[in-house]
Amino acid sequence: MKIGKTTEVRSAICAADADTIVVRGEDLCRDLIGKVSFSEFFHLALTGKRPTPAALALLDATLVAITEHGLVPSVQASRMTFAAAPDALQGAVAAGILGCGSVILGASETAGRLFVEIEGRMRAGESIDAASLAVVRAWREAKRPIAGYGHPLHKARDPRAHRLFDVAREQRADLRYVEIAQAVELAIPQVLDRKLTINVSAAIPAVLLGVGFPLEAMRGVPILARTAGLIAHLYEETHKPIGFALAYNAERGGQYDGELPAGVTLRHE
Amino acid sequence: MKIGKTTEVRSAICAADADTIVVRGEDLCRDLIGKVSFSEFFHLALTGKRPTPAALALLDATLVAITEHGLVPSVQASRMTFAAAPDALQGAVAAGILGCGSVILGASETAGRLFVEIEGRMRAGESIDAASLAVVRAWREAKRPIAGYGHPLHKARDPRAHRLFDVAREQRADLRYVEIAQAVELAIPQVLDRKLTINVSAAIPAVLLGVGFPLEAMRGVPILARTAGLIAHLYEETHKPIGFALAYNAERGGQYDGELPAGVTLRHE
Amino acid sequence: MKIGKTTEVRSAICAADADTIVVRGEDLCRDLIGKVSFSEFFHLALTGKRPTPAALALLDATLVAITEHGLVPSVQASRMTFAAAPDALQGAVAAGILGCGSVILGASETAGRLFVEIEGRMRAGESIDAASLAVVRAWREAKRPIAGYGHPLHKARDPRAHRLFDVAREQRADLRYVEIAQAVELAIPQVLDRKLTINVSAAIPAVLLGVGFPLEAMRGVPILARTAGLIAHLYEETHKPIGFALAYNAERGGQYDGELPAGVTLRHE
Amino acid sequence: MKIGKTTEVRSAICAADADTIVVRGEDLCRDLIGKVSFSEFFHLALTGKRPTPAALALLDATLVAITEHGLVPSVQASRMTFAAAPDALQGAVAAGILGCGSVILGASETAGRLFVEIEGRMRAGESIDAASLAVVRAWREAKRPIAGYGHPLHKARDPRAHRLFDVAREQRADLRYVEIAQAVELAIPQVLDRKLTINVSAAIPAVLLGVGFPLEAMRGVPILARTAGLIAHLYEETHKPIGFALAYNAERGGQYDGELPAGVTLRHE
Repeated sequence: MKIGKTTEVRSAICAADADTIVVRGEDLCRDLIGKVSFSEFFHLALTGKRPTPAALALLDATLVAITEHGLVPSVQASRMTFAAAPDALQGAVAAGILGCGSVILGASETAGRLFVEIEGRMRAGESIDAASLAVVRAWREAKRPIAGYGHPLHKARDPRAHRLFDVAREQRADLRYVEIAQAVELAIPQVLDRKLTINVSAAIPAVLLGVGFPLEAMRGVPILARTAGLIAHLYEETHKPIGFALAYNAERGGQYDGELPAGVTLRHE
Repeated sequence: MKIGKTTEVRSAICAADADTIVVRGEDLCRDLIGKVSFSEFFHLALTGKRPTPAALALLDATLVAITEHGLVPSVQASRMTFAAAPDALQGAVAAGILGCGSVILGASETAGRLFVEIEGRMRAGESIDAASLAVVRAWREAKRPIAGYGHPLHKARDPRAHRLFDVAREQRADLRYVEIAQAVELAIPQVLDRKLTINVSAAIPAVLLGVGFPLEAMRGVPILARTAGLIAHLYEETHKPIGFALAYNAERGGQYDGELPAGVTLRHE
Repeated sequence: MKIGKTTEVRSAICAADADTIVVRGEDLCRDLIGKVSFSEFFHLALTGKRPTPAALALLDATLVAITEHGLVPSVQASRMTFAAAPDALQGAVAAGILGCGSVILGASETAGRLFVEIEGRMRAGESIDAASLAVVRAWREAKRPIAGYGHPLHKARDPRAHRLFDVAREQRADLRYVEIAQAVELAIPQVLDRKLTINVSAAIPAVLLGVGFPLEAMRGVPILARTAGLIAHLYEETHKPIGFALAYNAERGGQYDGELPAGVTLRHE
Repeated sequence: MKIGKTTEVRSAICAADADTIVVRGEDLCRDLIGKVSFSEFFHLALTGKRPTPAALALLDATLVAITEHGLVPSVQASRMTFAAAPDALQGAVAAGILGCGSVILGASETAGRLFVEIEGRMRAGESIDAASLAVVRAWREAKRPIAGYGHPLHKARDPRAHRLFDVAREQRADLRYVEIAQAVELAIPQVLDRKLTINVSAAIPAVLLGVGFPLEAMRGVPILARTAGLIAHLYEETHKPIGFALAYNAERGGQYDGELPAGVTLRHE
């Protein structure tokens, strides 16, 4: 069944014969293995180009910033899944990644789109503050969420965001989107009537867009990072299992608020 | 419902308050972001320790070696999934990771278990060749697959395996498991009656066990690496879509070999 | 970490003690097992009520209609995943379900939303044709996809849609949304400048909304149905494996359109 | 890349042209939609044959028995995933299915394999008790888990198992595997030194093997059933969200038992 327009299969990422594997125009074994770091290779595979020193530093910094934050919901889902299906590590990792959605980790991409729209208006001559206010207002009116601001734990200030901005400055990266991210922080109280500070999910596109990382792949950064974090947690689960204990604690104190059949009462221990 | 023995929730990976995030005893923002690479952080989160230079070099080398090999089945599954559900990048990544199973990428762990068993016999006094032959024979008799040898494309020799061994030598890493991997290659024809050469999946534990990377987390290396590769492919899919074309080509020429209802014939275009 | 407003856990679906399991106010063992069909139970668990005869007939009919359509992309993804990870049936099923997204099987929900919006305007006094045209035009202008119309294979007419409409008539169900679905079919050429006929994904909400099936759960119908189809395919895969053959055929004839390192040529067999 | 022996794509499940869809030799629109229930269709698609009345009754009964058991770990994982990624219902369902693994719901298949092995010895002349004891002992010695016996909540007796056995008797199904399941219950205390009673996961193969349901597809029954249960829970999540509350309760009271950097203390609210 032909779905869509093309039946041609083309890809520019990798090709191989029996002796040689080529990735993005480089010989994997001769030029890359043992010579570049994993993040450098990820940048090459994704964009087709080796990263500049600033791009690599910021890619590493954002990946490090977002890999771990303890027993967040996706880690819990992953550890519960592993407890139930310990033969399939890949399944538990997949379950955890599936929680990198629009509300939690997908915010990086949404915030990036906001910043790019603001930057477009700035190129057309608007000031950064006017453009930020206009776009935040327009998104709000269209009921699009302003993602990447506010954090349930780091309420006053997400230390990861500030550290990422420092790294961008140290690397002398283009700070345009960092400034936009800060202008958005100032615009938010004017539109939403409450203060929400920049969190790590907005800081990621703020620093990465400045070094040319593609917006369409932005959600890939938290996904890749969290995969590393999930593997760490699942390895811990192999020798310190808590998957079922998490489920026990989550359920305890929960209540059934439906009906009972006539004459039935349930005894809880 | 209490499943298992404990209801206590403990983890040694990460803790946080409003101002500080601690990962494995280090302050994430002060000590890690902007100071360590993503692979270094992964090692720390997973094992609780920063890697030695050799451990880091080999972790990077194995991750780089296994990230990409073109349009392999898991990449195809992932691109087809993304074509059907483009709003959910995380779902397409998860679909691809689910193909890191016992037959394809899980081989790293299985091969690692084989090597560790051989090493145990060597410690008990057997020669490397005798131990390798004995264990390969025992696994064969128990119908356990000898994973990590032979490759559908790199039949004579998987260049990634040899390059990884070279990096291990350059790093002056413990080569014990590399030697075991080579002894297994020699033992295989005596048990299976055919030659199968070391592939990248056996080379990964061969070099990583020598630098202390935990066996139970070995499958995490291809899973993390392939996640990076999948993100590169899915980013390509956003601007050069081939997901549906792959499915079209896969199905074309396929045949229905079931029955047809009386009187029905199907017309194929 | 408290995310969102509530920390209270309440559910009205199921409760149990050591002796009794209650689902939606009924005793699972006494009232349901052996007394209701799986679809009837699904309706009860989902909505809290046993289905009327028409609601059950149409739920069964829609589930039957959408379970199978051969080697569609999600089935291919699932069979490839199973070939690579045969120990984890659940992983291969999950990979297939992940392809029930906005473009392919999620269309049921999107079409349902379109119909409900039209029905709202009809209640406010507009004619079915005016309301349909207005809503199709508004969605088109807002760049929201008009889902559930047109099919790559059943171009002139999707026989499943027509059969579902017949079953709705046989069951004397409320045909309001069927009529809306047909009015949309007539409105489309006026807005999109081409004819697209109703497919099964639009027919599902058209018949189910009329028997009170909740719009927010509409995507659950194709997901549940396809799970059954995937299990059938994966069982076939256990004795007639084609997962890797599909990937081989999909890739064959594909082309690497990236660069090669200087001096490297790849030999294809 | 050719993996495995064949490059031929054949399937006997479904074929279609523009006008007709054939499933297992029947015309989907003419013979099946509106005429068979979803379970009946599932049986046909899976096995190639319509079920006998007893086979259908037992398939429905087992699916109904295993669909729901409240906020079990896989439901929690699914609801947490949906809370984080509400746009992707399919992802939350997939996350829940991934918990149908060897420890929890995969037990149906494992128990089925045990029963089939016992039945083989009975055909060779052993008594049911001798065969059951011998096989339980052999599995125990080989460290293979005896799955499907004992339940964390239904300790004395799983009411679903007994109800399924009753349905099998009502349907005059072949009770051979039910008797084997009971013989295994008696054998267990002789081998494991404790009593474990039959749970629903052992009852499923016990009743389904007697009506010819294929062992290799046994894990499909809980997977399909739980998919229905997950959809019910995710629909509830759309209007009574508890996904994040579950994660909050699970984590609260948890403890970080790793180290803190010198001079750092964390303040918990």
